[in-house]
Amino acid sequence: MQIAVVLFDRFTALDAVGPYETLGRLPDARTVFVAEQTGPVRTDTGNLALVADLTLAEVPRPDIVVVPGGPGQTAQMDNEVLLEWLRAADATSTWTTSVCTGSLLLAAAGLLRGRRATSHWLALDSLKPFGAEPTGERVVTDGKYVTAAGVSSGIDMGLTLLGRIAGDEHAQAVQLLTEYDPQPPYDAGSPRKAPAHLVERAREASRFIPS
Amino acid sequence: MQIAVVLFDRFTALDAVGPYETLGRLPDARTVFVAEQTGPVRTDTGNLALVADLTLAEVPRPDIVVVPGGPGQTAQMDNEVLLEWLRAADATSTWTTSVCTGSLLLAAAGLLRGRRATSHWLALDSLKPFGAEPTGERVVTDGKYVTAAGVSSGIDMGLTLLGRIAGDEHAQAVQLLTEYDPQPPYDAGSPRKAPAHLVERAREASRFIPS
Repeated sequence: MQIAVVLFDRFTALDAVGPYETLGRLPDARTVFVAEQTGPVRTDTGNLALVADLTLAEVPRPDIVVVPGGPGQTAQMDNEVLLEWLRAADATSTWTTSVCTGSLLLAAAGLLRGRRATSHWLALDSLKPFGAEPTGERVVTDGKYVTAAGVSSGIDMGLTLLGRIAGDEHAQAVQLLTEYDPQPPYDAGSPRKAPAHLVERAREASRFIPS
Repeated sequence: MQIAVVLFDRFTALDAVGPYETLGRLPDARTVFVAEQTGPVRTDTGNLALVADLTLAEVPRPDIVVVPGGPGQTAQMDNEVLLEWLRAADATSTWTTSVCTGSLLLAAAGLLRGRRATSHWLALDSLKPFGAEPTGERVVTDGKYVTAAGVSSGIDMGLTLLGRIAGDEHAQAVQLLTEYDPQPPYDAGSPRKAPAHLVERAREASRFIPS
């Protein structure tokens, strides 16, 4: 089984690494990081690069597609090379997944029409023009489409899908190995829980809102 | 302010990316990924490489040191180039931190003598021969030393230290931006919570136990 994680300039690192570290521990699976060109791909902060080992063209039929998000997603919304690859890969994939604003790329490729889906909380409304039905849940499964909310939610998505494919016990073993027993020092991880003025400030500063 | 994240062959990706994605969003801070040589450094699965942009020698005095763990840690325990860099960087650092078995490297460098510290649950006992006092907490702060438990705990460590340095409100804003509102599909993330036979199996399979 092949898992393809798609990289593009200014993606968010944890969006990609969360599913890699969990779902990627599927037995007999091989995760490949892919991009239009091979080589280092810079994250949104500019301070880190992950290496794309293969080109999109070299991985035409992955079993699982994982699309991260990040500020760089907006520049990919009319990148027909990427969108066409997503459509073609999706035609034969077992699961097509996203984290954060990666779901907007799936939507732009026409894959989420009529589907329930999620995204970063700041980008949820942007799903609607593509015919997707946004929900505020952290991980949304509709058919073979599994979308996750912002950034860190890719860990929950990875474990959820891992359990679905390899069984609860395997997913629990991976949760134990990665010691995923979260104890955040604050309870501010969603717009429903964070102080209202921080939510407002994030909305104002948001780069996710499409122009 | 400079944050140095140390990479070495067969580190665990999430150990490094968790603190990068949280602590790295400290205002006016720049995160640099460093290794003995610049270039791609492969993770423990072999399926991903992160790029070290600078050598250890090029970053002699970071304000914050972050040392990830992973199966590759054992091969570094007598790497005097790395250990000597850790000692020298620690001499002027404001904070010296680790995730997972990264704490064993800090311990091997002699930095945790008489300190309370943590590590991956499978490696806790290995702290003792170095004079550190292992605790089962997820994030342990003793003076300027902040150690975190296994893999995913680096996210909690990053937010904790971010709050300490930049204030609660900034840390909450980063938690909101990264939508860190964890909802694991299972409650098996620590040896106290996981099914006993999975804990036992992990102990048997462990590569962390030093020979």
